[in-house]
Amino acid sequence: MTEALRFGLIGAGAAGRVHAANLARRIEGARLVAVADIAPGAAEGCANENGAEAAYTGEAELIAHAGVDAVVIATPPEFHAGAIEAAAAAGLHVFCEKPLERTLERADEALAAVEQAVVKLFIGLNRRYDPHYLRLAEAVRAGKIGRPLTVRLVARDPIEVFGHTPRPAGDLFLSTTVHELDFAEVIAGSPIESVYAVGGVLAEGDGPVIDDPDTAVTLMRFEGGASGSIDNSRISMHGYDQRIEVLGTGGMIEAGNLRPDDTVMTDGEGEHRSGPLFFFGDRYRQSYIAEMQAFVDCIRGDTPPPVGPAEARRSQVLALAAFHSYREGRPVRISEVG
Amino acid sequence: MTEALRFGLIGAGAAGRVHAANLARRIEGARLVAVADIAPGAAEGCANENGAEAAYTGEAELIAHAGVDAVVIATPPEFHAGAIEAAAAAGLHVFCEKPLERTLERADEALAAVEQAVVKLFIGLNRRYDPHYLRLAEAVRAGKIGRPLTVRLVARDPIEVFGHTPRPAGDLFLSTTVHELDFAEVIAGSPIESVYAVGGVLAEGDGPVIDDPDTAVTLMRFEGGASGSIDNSRISMHGYDQRIEVLGTGGMIEAGNLRPDDTVMTDGEGEHRSGPLFFFGDRYRQSYIAEMQAFVDCIRGDTPPPVGPAEARRSQVLALAAFHSYREGRPVRISEVG
Amino acid sequence: MTEALRFGLIGAGAAGRVHAANLARRIEGARLVAVADIAPGAAEGCANENGAEAAYTGEAELIAHAGVDAVVIATPPEFHAGAIEAAAAAGLHVFCEKPLERTLERADEALAAVEQAVVKLFIGLNRRYDPHYLRLAEAVRAGKIGRPLTVRLVARDPIEVFGHTPRPAGDLFLSTTVHELDFAEVIAGSPIESVYAVGGVLAEGDGPVIDDPDTAVTLMRFEGGASGSIDNSRISMHGYDQRIEVLGTGGMIEAGNLRPDDTVMTDGEGEHRSGPLFFFGDRYRQSYIAEMQAFVDCIRGDTPPPVGPAEARRSQVLALAAFHSYREGRPVRISEVG
Amino acid sequence: MTEALRFGLIGAGAAGRVHAANLARRIEGARLVAVADIAPGAAEGCANENGAEAAYTGEAELIAHAGVDAVVIATPPEFHAGAIEAAAAAGLHVFCEKPLERTLERADEALAAVEQAVVKLFIGLNRRYDPHYLRLAEAVRAGKIGRPLTVRLVARDPIEVFGHTPRPAGDLFLSTTVHELDFAEVIAGSPIESVYAVGGVLAEGDGPVIDDPDTAVTLMRFEGGASGSIDNSRISMHGYDQRIEVLGTGGMIEAGNLRPDDTVMTDGEGEHRSGPLFFFGDRYRQSYIAEMQAFVDCIRGDTPPPVGPAEARRSQVLALAAFHSYREGRPVRISEVG
Repeated sequence: MTEALRFGLIGAGAAGRVHAANLARRIEGARLVAVADIAPGAAEGCANENGAEAAYTGEAELIAHAGVDAVVIATPPEFHAGAIEAAAAAGLHVFCEKPLERTLERADEALAAVEQAVVKLFIGLNRRYDPHYLRLAEAVRAGKIGRPLTVRLVARDPIEVFGHTPRPAGDLFLSTTVHELDFAEVIAGSPIESVYAVGGVLAEGDGPVIDDPDTAVTLMRFEGGASGSIDNSRISMHGYDQRIEVLGTGGMIEAGNLRPDDTVMTDGEGEHRSGPLFFFGDRYRQSYIAEMQAFVDCIRGDTPPPVGPAEARRSQVLALAAFHSYREGRPVRISEVG
Repeated sequence: MTEALRFGLIGAGAAGRVHAANLARRIEGARLVAVADIAPGAAEGCANENGAEAAYTGEAELIAHAGVDAVVIATPPEFHAGAIEAAAAAGLHVFCEKPLERTLERADEALAAVEQAVVKLFIGLNRRYDPHYLRLAEAVRAGKIGRPLTVRLVARDPIEVFGHTPRPAGDLFLSTTVHELDFAEVIAGSPIESVYAVGGVLAEGDGPVIDDPDTAVTLMRFEGGASGSIDNSRISMHGYDQRIEVLGTGGMIEAGNLRPDDTVMTDGEGEHRSGPLFFFGDRYRQSYIAEMQAFVDCIRGDTPPPVGPAEARRSQVLALAAFHSYREGRPVRISEVG
Repeated sequence: MTEALRFGLIGAGAAGRVHAANLARRIEGARLVAVADIAPGAAEGCANENGAEAAYTGEAELIAHAGVDAVVIATPPEFHAGAIEAAAAAGLHVFCEKPLERTLERADEALAAVEQAVVKLFIGLNRRYDPHYLRLAEAVRAGKIGRPLTVRLVARDPIEVFGHTPRPAGDLFLSTTVHELDFAEVIAGSPIESVYAVGGVLAEGDGPVIDDPDTAVTLMRFEGGASGSIDNSRISMHGYDQRIEVLGTGGMIEAGNLRPDDTVMTDGEGEHRSGPLFFFGDRYRQSYIAEMQAFVDCIRGDTPPPVGPAEARRSQVLALAAFHSYREGRPVRISEVG
Repeated sequence: MTEALRFGLIGAGAAGRVHAANLARRIEGARLVAVADIAPGAAEGCANENGAEAAYTGEAELIAHAGVDAVVIATPPEFHAGAIEAAAAAGLHVFCEKPLERTLERADEALAAVEQAVVKLFIGLNRRYDPHYLRLAEAVRAGKIGRPLTVRLVARDPIEVFGHTPRPAGDLFLSTTVHELDFAEVIAGSPIESVYAVGGVLAEGDGPVIDDPDTAVTLMRFEGGASGSIDNSRISMHGYDQRIEVLGTGGMIEAGNLRPDDTVMTDGEGEHRSGPLFFFGDRYRQSYIAEMQAFVDCIRGDTPPPVGPAEARRSQVLALAAFHSYREGRPVRISEVG
C-alpha cells in the first residue's frame, strides 16, 4: 500500500472532532497531521487527542503545513468559501461540511476555484452514506414500494445542542434542511420543482433572530408530480429525531429512529424505552466514516467524488429556495434561485 | 325512559349502512324506522337488515314518513344542502355526514334553513369521537407535550375503495382532508391561518379528473405560529393509513395505525404483522357510535350539538381553502374563503 | 325468535359481575333474572345494576326461582361441585367458571350429576374464545409456522388483584395455570404428557400459604415431543401480562399484550406507552361474551357444549398435576393424576 | 506503549475466524501471529486474511512458534483440555471458547494445569460483554425492576448453521445452554439450585443423535426462590433468536432481538421488517471484541481474568446438570454434578 494521505482539519468544533477521530483511527489510507481552529486551545486539544503533529489558530498556516494532501473544512458556513479557495490554491483536495456556503455567490466562486485548481471537492451530505437510510433508499430505487408518491423527512435537533444559540438568518434551512432536501431528491429519483416553507421562532423565552426559525415545515413538489414534506426543529425536547417515510404506488417504507438502548422496561407506569440516539455523531457514526473513506478512495483512485461540486451547489440552491420561501411567505421554484 | 327517537336514513351507501346498523343496535334512545336511497333496492336491503319499517327511493317520502324525528344524511355532498333544507322545513333534526356541501353558498343556505327551523344539526366529523385520537388530543390539551409546535396527520384510503372512481373536482379535500383540517385545529388549540396544498393524479393508468388529485400534501400555518402537514392519498396500497403525530415544546406524541390482528409472525423472510384496519367503518367503529349517541343525547336533552353548525361551516371553509390552494398553486389564507 | 333463556347467577364477585353485565346486555337469546351471593347486599347490587328480578343469599333459593333455565356459577372453586349438583338436580343447564373444583373427587361427582340429569355443562375456559389468541391458534393449526416445537405462555396477575390475599393450597395452579395448560394443548395439537413446576412465595412481607406460590414456572412435555413453559405470577407490578409465543419448524408466532391506550409519547426521559390492559374483564372482554353466547347457542340448538365436561375434567387434571409437581418437587405424568 | 502481545489461534472455524479478525484489527495491545487448524488450508487462509506470520496444522507447532504470548482456543470442546494443558505447559496465557470441555474430569485437569503454570485462563462466555444484554443486567442489578422473580432466556440457532450436522451427546447443553445458564446467574444475582430439561430431536427427516436434542426447554430454580426457563433450538427457521426477559418485584425488563435492517415496509400483505441478525458473529460482534480486549488488558495489567477458571468450571457444571436432567428425565441439583 502506498503512503497514507496527510489530512489537515480546519475547525475543531463538534463535527470537526468527529472527522478528526475518524481520520486518526478509522479511515484506511489517511491520517490526520494538523488541526486549525481560531478558538485558543481548541486545535491543540483536538490534535493531541488524535495524534496530529501540529496545531494552528489560522487556516493559512495549516494549509502551508508540510506535506498536507487534503483538508477537511468544518467551520461555520460563512468561512467555507475562503477556506476552499485557499486550499485549492495550494493544490489541496477538499472535504467540506455542508452547506457549501451561506450565499450562492460565494459558493460559485469557491466552486470556480476548485475547478481551476483541478482538486477534488467532496461535500459532507452524510445521509447519503448512512446504512439505515441507504436501506430505505435502495428499497425505493429497487421498486419495492413502486413509484414514490409522497416523501416525508423528519430532522429535529435536541434543544440542548443549538436551541439556545442565536444563528444567522436562514441557518435552519442551510445547516439542517439542506440534508433532507438533498436526500429527498435521492429517494424520489426526481428533482424538486418548488418548495414552500412555514415556521417560526417558537421556543420559550427570547428566541434567536426572527429570520432563523427554530421550527419549520417545508413542503416539496417534485417534477414528476410527487410531493413531500420536511419537519425540522432545533428545540426538540425528545432528542435527535431523524426519520424518513416514503409512500409509493406499491406500499410504504419507513426508517425510524435508532436508540442507544434497545431494552424495554414495563412497570406500574407503563412501558418505557430509550428515546433516539442523542448526538449526531452517534446517530450518523457510520456515515461519517463511510463518506470520508469514499473521499480518500476517490483521491487515491483519481475518480470523481461521488458527492461533489454538483451536489454541493444543488443542495445549497434547494436550501436557499426554502429559506427564501419562508422569508417571503410564498412558494419558490428552484429555478428562481439557481 | 321516554320513547326512542325515530330516525330516517337518507343514503344507504357505505357510510349510511354504518349509521343504519348503529341506530338499529347500538344507540340508546333511538331506532331506525325508514331508509331512502335513489339506487333501486338499496333502501330495501338496508331497511331489511336493520329492521326499519319503510324503504323509499326519494328523500321527500322519507321525510314525510309518519313520526320521523330526525334524519341522517349520508348522500354525496352535492345533495346535502337540499336534504338538510327539506328535513329542517319538516321540523326534523339532522345528522349530516361531512362535508356540509360542495360549495359555501349552498352550505350557508342550508345552515340558514336549520337556524330558521330551530332544529339541531350535527356534522359527522367523527375523528372528534375516536377514542385513540381522543387520547392523543387529551394528552396534548393536558399539556403533556407542552405547547404544540408541529402537527402531522396522515389519512390515506385504500386504492380499492375510491382510487378507481372519478370524483368531482376538489373531492379529496372536501371528503378526506376536511377531517384532518378540523381535527388539526382541535389538537393545536389554535385556528389555521393559511394552507398550501400540492399533489396530483398519480395513479397508474387513466386517473380521475385533474382537479381532484388522488394524492396531496397540505401544509398548515396556525395563528399561534405552529405549523403542520396533512398527507392524503386515495391510492394507498397498504390500506387505510390513519395516523397523527404532534411535536410540542415538551416532547412528542403519536397515534399510529390500529390493526385487525395483533399477532406477529417471524419466518425465514423476516417479521410480519397485519397492516392497518382496512375499512373506515372498522377503524372508526367506536367513533361512529359515539357521535350518533352524542347527537341523540343532545336532542333528548335539548342541548346544543357539540359538533354543530359552526364546526360544519368552519371545516368546509378549511377544505375549500386547501382545494383553492391546490388549484391556484399558492398559499390561501382561510379568511379569503369565509 | 323464541323467548330468551332465563339465567341465574351464583356468585357476584368480579367474574360473576362480568357475566351478569353480558347476560343483561350483550348475549342474544338470554337474560339475567336472578342473582345469588352469600355476601349481604352483593346479590342486590348486581341484580339492580343488571335488571334482574330477584336477589338471594342462598344458591338453593336461586335455583328454585320461577322459570330459571340455566345458571352461571362464579363462586370460589370449592363451591362449584355443590352448586352444579343442585342445579343439575333441578334440571338447569350450567355454565361453571374454571376450575371445575378443587379436588378431582368432587369434580367427578359433579360431572356424574350432570350426566345423569342430562343437562349441559360449559366450563369457562375463556382463552378459547379470545380473538387475539384465536388468531394465533388458527395460524398454528393452519400450519403457518409448521409443526409446533416450543409453546410458551405468560399469565401474570397484577399484585393489586390477588397478590395480598391468602389463597388455598394450589390455587395459583387451579385458578390461573389451568387456563394456560388447557390452551397449550389447543395450540400444540397434542396432549401434555408430564409437567414440572417450580416457584415460591416471593412477595415482600408475609406471603400467603406456602403451598400456594405467588410465582411459578411450569414446564410441559407434550406427547409428540414438543415442550413448553408457563410463567405465572400473582404479584405482577406491571399489570395483567398475557402473552403466547409458539416456535414451529417453519417460524415463530407471538400474541403480545393489548393496551388500553395505543398512543406513544416521547420526551426527555425516553419513549413511553401504556402497559397492558389491567383488568381481566377488559383484556378478555370479547371472550367472555363469545363463550356465553356459545353456551346459549348450544342450549337453544341442543348441541353439545364446545367446551364441556371433557375439557372441564382434563384442565383440572392438568392443573392438579402441576400443583402436585410443585408440592413434591418432581415431574408428574398427567396419567398419574387422572 | 509496550509491545503488542503476540497471539496464536488454535482452530480456524467460524468462531476462530471472528477472533482472528478482531485480534488483527480491533484489539489494542495484541496482534495475531500464527494460526493452527487440522483442516488442510484452513490455517493458511485465516492467517493470510489477518496478516499472521505463520500457519500450522498442529497446535504443538503453534505453541512452539517463536515469541507467542497467548493462545485462543476455538476448537471443538473435546480438544480444549489438551490444548489448554499444552499451552499452559509452555507458559502461554489462554483464552478458551466455551465450554471448558465435554467432561468435568478433563475440565478439572485443564484447570489444574493452568493453576500450576500460573498462566491466565479466560473463558469465552461472551454474553457477559454484550452491550445490549449488559444494559439489561445493569438495570436489574441497579434494582430497576426490584428483586428478580422469573428469568427467561431464549437462544435459538438458525437451522442452516448447526441443524443438519450430528453433534455429540449433550452438545446442545454444553455449547449453547451453557451461555444462558451462566448469564442467568449473572442476572438473577443468585446461584441456580437445580435444573430440569426436556426436549427432543424434532427436526424433519433424520435427526442427529438422540442424546443431543435439537430443541429443549430448561427450567431453573435459583437458591433465592426465583425461577426461570431457557428456550434453546438448533432448528430455528426465523434466524438467530436471542432474547432475555426478567420479571421482578417492581416490573419487567426485556432485551429483544436486534436486526440487520431497521426499516419497516408495509404493503397489501401487511407490515414487514427484518428478522433477527442471522450470524452469531454479527449479533455478538461487540462482545467478541470486548471480551478479548478484557483478556489482553488482564494480561498486560496482571490482574485476574474477570471471566476465569471459576466461571469456566461453574458454567460447565451447570450445562452438564442440564444434560444429565435431560437424559435422566428428572430434576438435577447442581451440587450433584460438581
